[in-house]
Amino acid sequence: MSRSGTLADTFEEYERALMADDLPTLDRLFAPGPDTLRGDADGLLAGHDAIRDFRELRGGAPARTVVATHVRMVGDDTALVVAVTELERGGRGLQTQLWVRDGADWKVSAAHVSTPPPALDRRIWRVVGDPLVATQGPGVLDGHSVAVKDLYAVAGHRIGAGNPQWLESAGVEKEHAWVVDRLLSAGATVAGIARTDEFAYSLRGANAHYGAPPNPRAPHRVPGGSSSGSASAVSLGHATIGLGTDTGGSIRVPAAYQGLYGIRTTHGAVPLTGVLGLAPSFDTVGWLTRDAHLLGTVGEALLPPAAPNGDNRLLVSPALLAAARPDVAAAAVAFLDGVEHMTVDWDLSELPAWLAAFQTLQAAEAWQLHGTWLGTRLDTLGADVRSRFERASRITEEQAAEARVRVRAARDRIRDLVGDSVLVLPSASSVAPLLADSDEDVRTSTMRLTCLAGLAGLPAVSIPVRTAAGLPAGVCLVAAAGRDRDLLRLAAELPRPDGRG
Amino acid sequence: MSRSGTLADTFEEYERALMADDLPTLDRLFAPGPDTLRGDADGLLAGHDAIRDFRELRGGAPARTVVATHVRMVGDDTALVVAVTELERGGRGLQTQLWVRDGADWKVSAAHVSTPPPALDRRIWRVVGDPLVATQGPGVLDGHSVAVKDLYAVAGHRIGAGNPQWLESAGVEKEHAWVVDRLLSAGATVAGIARTDEFAYSLRGANAHYGAPPNPRAPHRVPGGSSSGSASAVSLGHATIGLGTDTGGSIRVPAAYQGLYGIRTTHGAVPLTGVLGLAPSFDTVGWLTRDAHLLGTVGEALLPPAAPNGDNRLLVSPALLAAARPDVAAAAVAFLDGVEHMTVDWDLSELPAWLAAFQTLQAAEAWQLHGTWLGTRLDTLGADVRSRFERASRITEEQAAEARVRVRAARDRIRDLVGDSVLVLPSASSVAPLLADSDEDVRTSTMRLTCLAGLAGLPAVSIPVRTAAGLPAGVCLVAAAGRDRDLLRLAAELPRPDGRG
Repeated sequence: MSRSGTLADTFEEYERALMADDLPTLDRLFAPGPDTLRGDADGLLAGHDAIRDFRELRGGAPARTVVATHVRMVGDDTALVVAVTELERGGRGLQTQLWVRDGADWKVSAAHVSTPPPALDRRIWRVVGDPLVATQGPGVLDGHSVAVKDLYAVAGHRIGAGNPQWLESAGVEKEHAWVVDRLLSAGATVAGIARTDEFAYSLRGANAHYGAPPNPRAPHRVPGGSSSGSASAVSLGHATIGLGTDTGGSIRVPAAYQGLYGIRTTHGAVPLTGVLGLAPSFDTVGWLTRDAHLLGTVGEALLPPAAPNGDNRLLVSPALLAAARPDVAAAAVAFLDGVEHMTVDWDLSELPAWLAAFQTLQAAEAWQLHGTWLGTRLDTLGADVRSRFERASRITEEQAAEARVRVRAARDRIRDLVGDSVLVLPSASSVAPLLADSDEDVRTSTMRLTCLAGLAGLPAVSIPVRTAAGLPAGVCLVAAAGRDRDLLRLAAELPRPDGRG
Repeated sequence: MSRSGTLADTFEEYERALMADDLPTLDRLFAPGPDTLRGDADGLLAGHDAIRDFRELRGGAPARTVVATHVRMVGDDTALVVAVTELERGGRGLQTQLWVRDGADWKVSAAHVSTPPPALDRRIWRVVGDPLVATQGPGVLDGHSVAVKDLYAVAGHRIGAGNPQWLESAGVEKEHAWVVDRLLSAGATVAGIARTDEFAYSLRGANAHYGAPPNPRAPHRVPGGSSSGSASAVSLGHATIGLGTDTGGSIRVPAAYQGLYGIRTTHGAVPLTGVLGLAPSFDTVGWLTRDAHLLGTVGEALLPPAAPNGDNRLLVSPALLAAARPDVAAAAVAFLDGVEHMTVDWDLSELPAWLAAFQTLQAAEAWQLHGTWLGTRLDTLGADVRSRFERASRITEEQAAEARVRVRAARDRIRDLVGDSVLVLPSASSVAPLLADSDEDVRTSTMRLTCLAGLAGLPAVSIPVRTAAGLPAGVCLVAAAGRDRDLLRLAAELPRPDGRG
């Protein structure tokens, strides 16, 4: 109707289409081509098609009314329109649009949208305070704040484990988890309780109930999990320390996807008292930070004392580099170009079998821990975690026992290979997948890399690198059991490879 | 040098000036005149001078780096620049600027800035959850959430009273305040604990420690207090119910300033068990909502049962209208134009004396409650609250006793005047003052109006109206003690006077 209407008509048509989530009209009113821009608090999208994909995934904009409009004509064929909106749910928004006339039709060439933030971002947080728990310091962590993964006990709060039904049935914790208590004593505050993938049984960070926390450096991509909320909280500066756990990569993967530093500690080195487990043979405490120095300072508060031990010779296995996507492998190679290292020619033909053993034992232990509760509640889980627990429920005792034997053999073999040196490998096989892309192969490919430290109970530090396209990725340093502090020192000494301050 | 090179240079100069908080350069690089725009999550500013004033108050933008820039030339003399920034504190921001060439110089004609929101807005909240406390319903408030003023006990949390030292020394509450418990039983959840002016002893809503909560409908103006956080939380849709208290206007003033509905209940009608008091002779429970219907539903949960009583004849005193600024008085008159009312010619010459008695007794009681703790801690208070408590500390027993006699006489007189009818008066004497404007007269002028219900212990419902300039204001309905439910029904029946849905 208003295809050749005035700017005012077209602006109104746009508002109506937005409120009706009329995607064909919105697509038509945005200029075609790769230069069209649309940005909001979650990031900037470039290109008509990327904007269309975003709209399809979004499922409608919040209901609103335009309460003030400022139109600035720039020549005959271009206009800037700045509009104040009032949201039905409360608060005011702002949008700035550059409209350009394309023949007879006005189209949006660039748009910038602000809406008032919610009280808290429920994708990241379950509860948050200023702070939530005051420090018991002073100590080495003075002035720092912790996003606590919702698997750790915080006195006075429940453990939610990423599942609303579990949260509802959970009792209030009387004492802090050992690690939380230690961090508070070292001078840190608890900022809040951060989201996790359900029962930590995912590497994606897209909780079905609360949504995927944002990934600021890789907009519209998954944040990585399962320590997803802790990682995003650190990326956004909501906290300086993201406390998480790592069973099969739950620290290393969000670190890589978001460009953070992260450590998975030696299995058994840091007490898991007060932490809801997933697979005790592999579960470890871990944390994420935005810089290597702080990653080490947290280690001072949590790790047992240990003198420097072994050497810091970096070992690189081409087979492990090749297990990552080319962009991530190239970023790892670029990192290695700047540091002395030795290439090793390991036989890793058993890797698929090791991964299978890891996944079988992980699943068997997860079902042993949670099967009683989940037995009648599998339908409370998101699809991917549910399918994993369903498979877990069918693992026989024989299969679990066999997996345990294979895990032990793999552990011994991997410990032999790493020896007193430092293995360097990609932290995850790819950059963060797009939110719209839910390919299960990503998990398998990444776990082929992450399972090594998991199987052998070794400490692993993920260091942020960047791909040629500028997306975050990670390289991982793995060393002998107990060498956590050596890895932390090494990470702080290495030149920062992602070029950030 | 090419034209786009000049733009690039100027863009860089702007970034440097922004990071250095170099106000003269920023002022020069923004186009002069009333049409220049600058908007962010807190609202849109129009005019070069308003933008300059904002910058002076702000004290610098957060440290950031531009990580991506998109330039769209529009003819020779206009360019849109969309830039992605990376904040030093974490997360990414977005800014859209329309640059226009003015002679040889490029200047910003419109700017839209987004920065990642913090974990929680500490101006509004001390702690917030999804929810913070689960409901104990079901009930009439199913699906509703409450922002609890930081004077009410929430089990497992401290009472902060808007003062960091008080918070630090407070014990953890074992039980919910009576009102909180009732709201939870009626189906509501507790969203969080919201900021208050220190010890509720202000009507401004600009806590010296945590900042002034935003006022979305009156950007860059104070939110009104002391139930400031509860009010802003409701305005922004962070909660649907703002729980507060009203001693001398602490519900009615933020309701008026923000365009909300609010009720101050009959003195003594709703138990204050578990609430930190200010002046027990005047303290009451109150709440704020975005619509009149919900205001009444909360009343069903909290108020004692009462049959309709008295009449709903509206009484208007020209002397009270004249006590407000002309824009607010005009908005009240416009409201009255639409409803049947009766003009009364009351002798209100005693009003200044009544206000003095109110303020003396309020101060004496406040010092009686808090003097022991504050005696050695006055320097922990913001300047305005401190000066009020300092004056309070000097009130003699004789002065307090005399004030009490005058208050009793005023109460009887006001109750006689209101009788079985409904008094209509402005809720506050002015619209919300600008943040930059800290004129103490505003408090006195407003209290001349609000003290009437306070002195007489009467219920008062504030209804949102708008001034000719489009700013929120309030008209207040006051009725006999115990007629809270009548006022709530009346407010829901009246046509919504601010033209909002």
